[in-house]
Amino acid sequence: MLKLLDVPTAQRTILRRTPLSAMDYPGVVLERTEKLFGKGVTPPQAVAIILASVQAEGDAALRRWSKLIDQVDLDAKTPSEGFCVPPAELEKAYQSLPEDLCQALQAAAGRIRKFHEFQPLPNWETETLGGRLGQRAIPVDRAGVYVPGGTAPLPSSLLMSVIPAQVAGVRQVVVCTPPNPHPVILAVAHLCGVDQVFQLGGAQAIAAMTFGTETVPRVDKIVGAGNLFVTLAKQQVYGLVGLDGLAGPTETMVIADRHARPDWVAADLLAQAEHDVLACAILLTPDRELAEKVQVEVGRQMEALSRAEIITQSLSNRSGIVLTPDLEIAAHLASEFAPEHLCLAVADPESLASRVHNAGGLFLGERSFEVLGDYIAGPSHVMPTGGTARFASPLNVMDFVKITSIVALDALTSSELSPLAARIARAEGLTAHAAAAEFRIIR
Amino acid sequence: MLKLLDVPTAQRTILRRTPLSAMDYPGVVLERTEKLFGKGVTPPQAVAIILASVQAEGDAALRRWSKLIDQVDLDAKTPSEGFCVPPAELEKAYQSLPEDLCQALQAAAGRIRKFHEFQPLPNWETETLGGRLGQRAIPVDRAGVYVPGGTAPLPSSLLMSVIPAQVAGVRQVVVCTPPNPHPVILAVAHLCGVDQVFQLGGAQAIAAMTFGTETVPRVDKIVGAGNLFVTLAKQQVYGLVGLDGLAGPTETMVIADRHARPDWVAADLLAQAEHDVLACAILLTPDRELAEKVQVEVGRQMEALSRAEIITQSLSNRSGIVLTPDLEIAAHLASEFAPEHLCLAVADPESLASRVHNAGGLFLGERSFEVLGDYIAGPSHVMPTGGTARFASPLNVMDFVKITSIVALDALTSSELSPLAARIARAEGLTAHAAAAEFRIIR
Repeated sequence: MLKLLDVPTAQRTILRRTPLSAMDYPGVVLERTEKLFGKGVTPPQAVAIILASVQAEGDAALRRWSKLIDQVDLDAKTPSEGFCVPPAELEKAYQSLPEDLCQALQAAAGRIRKFHEFQPLPNWETETLGGRLGQRAIPVDRAGVYVPGGTAPLPSSLLMSVIPAQVAGVRQVVVCTPPNPHPVILAVAHLCGVDQVFQLGGAQAIAAMTFGTETVPRVDKIVGAGNLFVTLAKQQVYGLVGLDGLAGPTETMVIADRHARPDWVAADLLAQAEHDVLACAILLTPDRELAEKVQVEVGRQMEALSRAEIITQSLSNRSGIVLTPDLEIAAHLASEFAPEHLCLAVADPESLASRVHNAGGLFLGERSFEVLGDYIAGPSHVMPTGGTARFASPLNVMDFVKITSIVALDALTSSELSPLAARIARAEGLTAHAAAAEFRIIR
Repeated sequence: MLKLLDVPTAQRTILRRTPLSAMDYPGVVLERTEKLFGKGVTPPQAVAIILASVQAEGDAALRRWSKLIDQVDLDAKTPSEGFCVPPAELEKAYQSLPEDLCQALQAAAGRIRKFHEFQPLPNWETETLGGRLGQRAIPVDRAGVYVPGGTAPLPSSLLMSVIPAQVAGVRQVVVCTPPNPHPVILAVAHLCGVDQVFQLGGAQAIAAMTFGTETVPRVDKIVGAGNLFVTLAKQQVYGLVGLDGLAGPTETMVIADRHARPDWVAADLLAQAEHDVLACAILLTPDRELAEKVQVEVGRQMEALSRAEIITQSLSNRSGIVLTPDLEIAAHLASEFAPEHLCLAVADPESLASRVHNAGGLFLGERSFEVLGDYIAGPSHVMPTGGTARFASPLNVMDFVKITSIVALDALTSSELSPLAARIARAEGLTAHAAAAEFRIIR
């Protein structure tokens, strides 16, 4: 079921990166887009239409798109609150949580909060450069978190996005999630103290948070993954609002040696594969015996799993086992691939970790498996996909602050630097710059 | 010359933000685009054509666009190196720098380097959460800096972009700048130890650094401002490569009280206004007497300046003096505007600074004027424009690193957390996640 590949074959297939922008739109999406927006309208064009209308018409456009796309008449349902779920409903959902699930979610929230509270921020100042110079990290005023809807609600994503914002000191955190949200989403919003939940999905939610409407506040930063329309909308509002990046299908790489337990490795790959049919689960190992045992285990364990159909597809799409000459080459291939998650199920994970330059999350040893990272270990599970770990980071406290550089020079330093600044200004042909500097020379 | 406005009028005019995306393309740009790319081709479409061709054809496309757009035949000029300026030319340009300019640039480079070396990075680890958890900041492998060409070369922008990358530990920093670069750009590239300078401009430069070609390496992060085509190209490659943001016209706000010197304030506004006709120079003051003196000084000083024509236009476009009821309201308006630079020429700048939530750079006191920040104070002068200081930061060392989250739990903690993770997984309908966690429970 899980194919076994040599390195060159893997590099031509499962290790090859396809940029998000080069992916074809699924036929069903194209059909639905044409049906709703008219003949020949592409998904990016549909998204541009939605964005422009929400910017121009506000809530009226939101109601129209929610009716057309999500088949909900938000006006009729909740005349007083509009799109905002009443706080009492959040609390009610929270009170209805099963006791043991509530405890688990609270434990997760507690660890996520503690982890992010450790993150140092670049608040610093020096007096060694003549006066005071430094940087201040100031939280953004408002953050918006998108939480996808669909059949499998992901309350964990809400915790993983909201808590880093709260730790950063963001004044107001709002959540958008498609209409008729699952009660567990509402419950978790209450649990972690979200200010407002709006039942808005897709591109219209991104538009509302970017531009603001009569009822939805404009935010300074939007985070969270969503469907194709959400991703296209984020791409189009780039530059107008802060973003956490564009999310593609989730990915795991496991590097294992002969010390790894094949049943655990198989379980970790299966967990990854159950997300969706494009999920990517790759094992790199120099040990053929382990590889073959993992193949057997994957087949055996899959029988008991509820999402076996999805798993079957994702394992055959972008997943597989790569036999590498040694662990160093495995680490090199992983670094090139820049996976969202990299799990090191080897005897000496720390020394292997030092060879990895690109990965969203590094899980050291088979006791630190990815599922713990998904829910409760501490770091946000919102991590860079599609190879963007080359330059992007997991969601973290820095995502919710911006730096202001501070310049408070003393008079003497200012005077000494002024002729130097004037000289460079004249080389750039900027005489007004030079004049402003020459004014400050103490003679 | 510099108009005097009350707050409501200012809010309707110069304090009003127009998003980059809503700005009309200048007629001359539309004409030139149609002439080069064909009837009805818009600038974004032209940029999409350039990006796709460079991705598909590499150097051949770069040569074609350089010939068509920049009227240079790079093949014929430098057959051996292609687009790369030979290192010997960089050194020659450096040797030809006037001695006093060279000293000024070296002093600037030294202060910029020292400033950025102070910035703390989020490398941390804790053992308080059961095992070891933390974050590692890893430099990106390769960074690309775009330096615009044009009539006024800006060697300072090269220093301000390259040095933070070097401090971050980036392995290779390359520069792209339009063909036939000014010798001072080449000299400064040598001065700060840039690895390679490519004479490539516009969208084709961004394409080359994003996708890589036979001669230009693919980079992980692109920084630097450019013309409209550069900005559109950055917008279109968002998600494929790390970016520092989209740059609009430069902006300064000065808040001044009756203690400020009108001649200095005027000089600072004029320095800002000489950048280009869209530059924005705004004074906020509660003191009418100061406001009127600044008006007089602006008129008087302008006569001596070489770029008086540009200044006249930029002062009448997006600049002005706003009379505010008090300093607190001035600080509030500045925070709302989120300027690139904010200069506090007041008796107690520090207490006013604490009221500002959004600004790229804060200059405290009239000895810390913006021109010093442009060249030599220390912080990078690449700062967020267009109101993006709401969520974006000046270029800094964090721009050139990414975080990897580290999870190395001990066996006991892993076992204790596993049933909690399994419970949340089951609530999300993810049974393979639950199974992977249940495997790790020590019974």
